[in-house]
Amino acid sequence: MTIRPPAEIGMTLDEVDTPALIVDLDAFERNLRRLADRIAGTGVRLRAHAKTHKCPVIALKQVELGAVGVCCQKVSEAEAMVYGGVRDVLVTNEVVGRQKLRRLMGLAALAHIGVCADDPAQLRDLESAAAEAGKTLSVYVEVNMGGNRCGVEPGPPALDLAKRIGDHPHLSFAGLQAYHGSAQHLRTWEERQQAIAGAVAKAAATRDLLAANGIPCNTITGAGTGTFEFEAGSGVYTELQCGSYIFMDADYGRNLDRDGAPTRAFEPSLFVWATVMSRPAGDRAIVDAGLKALAFDSGPPLVWDEPAATYDRASDEHGKLGISAATNRLNLGDKVRLVPGHCDPTVNLYDWYVGVRGDRVETLWPITARGAVY
Amino acid sequence: MTIRPPAEIGMTLDEVDTPALIVDLDAFERNLRRLADRIAGTGVRLRAHAKTHKCPVIALKQVELGAVGVCCQKVSEAEAMVYGGVRDVLVTNEVVGRQKLRRLMGLAALAHIGVCADDPAQLRDLESAAAEAGKTLSVYVEVNMGGNRCGVEPGPPALDLAKRIGDHPHLSFAGLQAYHGSAQHLRTWEERQQAIAGAVAKAAATRDLLAANGIPCNTITGAGTGTFEFEAGSGVYTELQCGSYIFMDADYGRNLDRDGAPTRAFEPSLFVWATVMSRPAGDRAIVDAGLKALAFDSGPPLVWDEPAATYDRASDEHGKLGISAATNRLNLGDKVRLVPGHCDPTVNLYDWYVGVRGDRVETLWPITARGAVY
Repeated sequence: MTIRPPAEIGMTLDEVDTPALIVDLDAFERNLRRLADRIAGTGVRLRAHAKTHKCPVIALKQVELGAVGVCCQKVSEAEAMVYGGVRDVLVTNEVVGRQKLRRLMGLAALAHIGVCADDPAQLRDLESAAAEAGKTLSVYVEVNMGGNRCGVEPGPPALDLAKRIGDHPHLSFAGLQAYHGSAQHLRTWEERQQAIAGAVAKAAATRDLLAANGIPCNTITGAGTGTFEFEAGSGVYTELQCGSYIFMDADYGRNLDRDGAPTRAFEPSLFVWATVMSRPAGDRAIVDAGLKALAFDSGPPLVWDEPAATYDRASDEHGKLGISAATNRLNLGDKVRLVPGHCDPTVNLYDWYVGVRGDRVETLWPITARGAVY
Repeated sequence: MTIRPPAEIGMTLDEVDTPALIVDLDAFERNLRRLADRIAGTGVRLRAHAKTHKCPVIALKQVELGAVGVCCQKVSEAEAMVYGGVRDVLVTNEVVGRQKLRRLMGLAALAHIGVCADDPAQLRDLESAAAEAGKTLSVYVEVNMGGNRCGVEPGPPALDLAKRIGDHPHLSFAGLQAYHGSAQHLRTWEERQQAIAGAVAKAAATRDLLAANGIPCNTITGAGTGTFEFEAGSGVYTELQCGSYIFMDADYGRNLDRDGAPTRAFEPSLFVWATVMSRPAGDRAIVDAGLKALAFDSGPPLVWDEPAATYDRASDEHGKLGISAATNRLNLGDKVRLVPGHCDPTVNLYDWYVGVRGDRVETLWPITARGAVY
């Protein structure tokens, strides 16, 4: 059931079978360094989100450049990270269910593990699992920053939950999970700045309320690729959870910088490599990458090698490109790079990254947390 | 990289970890038999589409009930089927690229293999690969039935390509691939009937033109779950390619029968099993199944266990259910069955089917062609 790699090291890019998930290593490394450089000296550290890449090889590169560790969304993702050598993992999510909690505590024997909560009933189950394992578990209170997904409300509800954590002998209050997801793709710089200003105010007020009640809050963790500069400069957030910055995608590419131009903070480094498999008419080319090779929740991919071509329609295994405006003929057998609309769920469709430097396959990285949904 | 199963045989459903892909075996078996019964005596046989299930265990059940074999969309899917014991596989797609063609011919040593073409350049490459393998390959002319994806136009262009197949010593013309994909989800019975009447006319005219030119066309293959009754009764189609009928999904469930009621031809048998992981407010419940656990290209899933609840928004690992109208409280830790919007790309996210009979896990089937995109 493990799909073999679509390439071998040393091949030229053109020899790589399709569809394949390729990483432009030069662009990828520039992205890695750019974030490290941008936050150097701010006192805020990166806890990179591994939900994007699902690959311990990449996680360890992030740690090498200064990340304190990674975040995951699922216990099974955390397993892949810990078994791949990562020693500090925060599950930025509620974990519910006895099997999951036992597995989470199993990891605590190998690494520093944190988890989030937004309900007293979760604390009861976390306590049982931690007691059974004979460990103390770091628990973060997830606070609703405005996305109205998980999380208690800021202020008194967060204080209440933090106090309750303190009532459990095997749980220790570790800080606030304060990620404002719905701010990440607000298109203008001002909208994002304003949204994060609101999140910062909520996080600071909650922190101060905790302190006034004798509960020190040393960690406020959150932020994503769209907003990290605001959290980094807030004086309130202590950790950033950026994930997509390493790859970017078409959707993040539509965010605008302060000057109104499309964001230049990072550059696309992740592509789906596809073949033109049918050229039935002058105005359309059919590629071999459809709904099972790309995520479409944030729109279709961009045709990187021919911006005048448009990915018009996806079916399960086909993509229909409109090419009437293209200067590249996109002939039968030609291969093209597509920039995914959304990187995270696209990565989750593949078992391997094909790392390419220039025209040459340099490395193959296994996506060990691919499909790690539980 | 193989994700372990989320269940063990003998468990109760409630013990199955989430998210998991569960199959209600009773409903699944009824669907299998219903199609077999519906086409018994028509002279038309099923060539079930394995792109839906990606699982040789299921393919062999279809063959047991009379299917001539299966179809696949990708060479890697065909590999999974042949290595899983299926002995007749038609790749209902163009196959472009030397590596893929060599792998395709590798399968021809173990099974009867067919493939489609819609361009003379493909024939040249198919011929090379077949000659290299010392085999004769069955080639179907794919005809555009109106979906405007792949395929030559009906009539003279199809005749021209069929003639060219005959010019290649290692290729043999096997019939017409005449699938009308865009007709499958036309909502009313009359719309679907009319669309397929058009496809039947095109296929028949092409068949007759071939015959008039001395090229017998013994196989016309096509049809899907939405339209099979029309192709089966056409007197023109000889094979049906239904795939989704075994599972159904929310999108197919919106098709209407002749009497205007939602289709009763088949019933939902495939579910994503999810846990309520957060209950932050009275009107919303957050489940642990998002964009990496369900396909959203054909809309969100239905909440099977509480039809008044709606799956309102997906993020990568979360689903937000609106439950204001629900009578089921959907408490923290409760598990629910979700009917995927679209079965095929949902299946492609999982490594295992958890087969459940009543409340008991009866079987675990590996989805060996999961991720088989090339």
